Amino acid sequence: MSRVWNFSAGPAAMPLPVLERAQRELLDWNGSGASVMEQSHRGKRFMTMAQQVEADLRELMGIPDHYAVLFEQGGATQHFAQIPMNLAREGDRADYIVTGHWSEKAASEAAPYVQVNVAATSKAESFLRMPARETWKLDSGAAYVHIATNETIHGVQFKHAPEVGDVPLVADMSSDILSGPIDVSRYGLIYAGAQKNIGPSGLVLVIIRRDLLERATRPMAKIFRYAEHAAHDSMLNTPNTWGWYLAGLTFQWLKENGGLAAMDVLNRQKSQMLYAAIDGSGGYYRNPIDPPVRSRMNVPFTLHDSSLDAAFLQESEAAGLLALKGHKAVGGMRASLYNAVPMEAVQALVDFMSEFSRRHG
Amino acid sequence: MSRVWNFSAGPAAMPLPVLERAQRELLDWNGSGASVMEQSHRGKRFMTMAQQVEADLRELMGIPDHYAVLFEQGGATQHFAQIPMNLAREGDRADYIVTGHWSEKAASEAAPYVQVNVAATSKAESFLRMPARETWKLDSGAAYVHIATNETIHGVQFKHAPEVGDVPLVADMSSDILSGPIDVSRYGLIYAGAQKNIGPSGLVLVIIRRDLLERATRPMAKIFRYAEHAAHDSMLNTPNTWGWYLAGLTFQWLKENGGLAAMDVLNRQKSQMLYAAIDGSGGYYRNPIDPPVRSRMNVPFTLHDSSLDAAFLQESEAAGLLALKGHKAVGGMRASLYNAVPMEAVQALVDFMSEFSRRHG
Repeated sequence: MSRVWNFSAGPAAMPLPVLERAQRELLDWNGSGASVMEQSHRGKRFMTMAQQVEADLRELMGIPDHYAVLFEQGGATQHFAQIPMNLAREGDRADYIVTGHWSEKAASEAAPYVQVNVAATSKAESFLRMPARETWKLDSGAAYVHIATNETIHGVQFKHAPEVGDVPLVADMSSDILSGPIDVSRYGLIYAGAQKNIGPSGLVLVIIRRDLLERATRPMAKIFRYAEHAAHDSMLNTPNTWGWYLAGLTFQWLKENGGLAAMDVLNRQKSQMLYAAIDGSGGYYRNPIDPPVRSRMNVPFTLHDSSLDAAFLQESEAAGLLALKGHKAVGGMRASLYNAVPMEAVQALVDFMSEFSRRHG
Repeated sequence: MSRVWNFSAGPAAMPLPVLERAQRELLDWNGSGASVMEQSHRGKRFMTMAQQVEADLRELMGIPDHYAVLFEQGGATQHFAQIPMNLAREGDRADYIVTGHWSEKAASEAAPYVQVNVAATSKAESFLRMPARETWKLDSGAAYVHIATNETIHGVQFKHAPEVGDVPLVADMSSDILSGPIDVSRYGLIYAGAQKNIGPSGLVLVIIRRDLLERATRPMAKIFRYAEHAAHDSMLNTPNTWGWYLAGLTFQWLKENGGLAAMDVLNRQKSQMLYAAIDGSGGYYRNPIDPPVRSRMNVPFTLHDSSLDAAFLQESEAAGLLALKGHKAVGGMRASLYNAVPMEAVQALVDFMSEFSRRHG
């Protein structure tokens, strides 16, 4: 079959030119006579590429020199644990802002390593809004404040970095990194699983202010220490070389397409088009999220009659619209609109939704 | 350029039919209209494939039902730490057999989590031989005994599982897994980074006797617990889906090519051909390893005159023989002869070596 429009929450759609290039050079990369997957990570060809990938990311995101960029493994979930292992000393406290499934999980995985204080949560409101900043009960002695900038399942998103004073702000940006410009200097640590806006699964970016590298004092294996990874340019052990390579192709694609400012414009337009279709459907489709914090990346929505869900999924897939099933925690549908999902895909989706509502009125 | 013969120690050569198939279906996998990298790991298509991959591995290796098979991340290096975290209780002791760089590193990364006892080591003999089994000072109260079945850098290999009584035997098989049949029931835990005989880097196989899953009692995040990964079929979080897929293609390729018994024959022939060329070179080339424990996977060798090393590397690369540079710890050259390296490649290498010695006699 031909390529479909892919709304998967992750592993998610990748830019077609990136996939096409990876396909072309799969057997013979960079004139080496071997695949990029068959190269030693310590060989000259791979090292040169790896440095370029980091340089491109630094340029795209405007990452200052006093931040290290690490290409890690384990998924963001492993870093839920590695962050307190590295940033908190034994007995330290940390503040967690719980705004959906993923920030809640981050807090729970951190608990063996730090005293977790849930400084704010919208759980009692089913995560439909953000807890207002003035209600947060921050601890000025906390080792860090943790947020998830975008909640992939619940569809709520921080549109700006919250002000948290001198305590380092740690952000899981797995599902909205590179979707628009941010001010990296507002954060102590940014991390993101690759499988939404960066590349394939199995790679995690960690961007960490270098002074925080020195905090890890508890006994642990070197492999868990960010300082060791930074000192070895993320080659303390064999990295995910394929993921690193594809991240690099994605960064090049972003640069060729106007960088993060252009993505920001596109992502606003795409999400506005879909929210407008939902809000203008007279209740046929519904997204219950407080409008100012609605995610530009993940748009959950329900049908007015859930008995139509199966038909919606079947017919949308037949129409070449893939992976619209919502997460079981919120039900209904979800369309993920990451960078690699073009306007054309969103247009196809809203056209389908309109037609479906007419047919199944 | 066309494909070369690739002797990389890892990430290493992959079977050409595997790469060709991955290339063909890179944009449209399994009739989905999207890449395998763009599929939700929880989608029906991926789940069906993932189960088949595990079934194929179980068939190839003869893995009994009372062993769990996990598809993990972090490289074998991370599991140097995760193994004691999971198999040892606080205060427990474990025996390590140190036969080269990697088993030494395994012991050092384990030290924060278990009392490491180096029960035997050939370090004083520069790892040129194996410590005789009767000299091992095993502790019958140890949580486990750890070995590396093949030392990728030093080129020594256990040809049989050593007898260690009732204490679980834990084996790093990163560089010789799937190179021939083994009796899995002799081991408590087998682990292997994928990037030699399985697939691309960023994936680690862990094969663990299920009763050992219950040992992890110390406080730690779920993501580090093998029992959690086993209970969630290695989908506790997003796995390395591309690695899993390529491992599956490799397992199919192995099945189509006679399985591990056929690999065993081939790997013996390949390594014998290269050792014979070295030993028959009248001292021009030299491998100093005690013959019975010479590795069938990684063959380090030196030239009689190390001032010829640069010419050897340059001319071999020009002749289409890639990645023959030895590890700096032992110097000289190294040819890695994993499953994906065909006899033809070894023939080309020994022909080149013979010709080189004539030209630079």
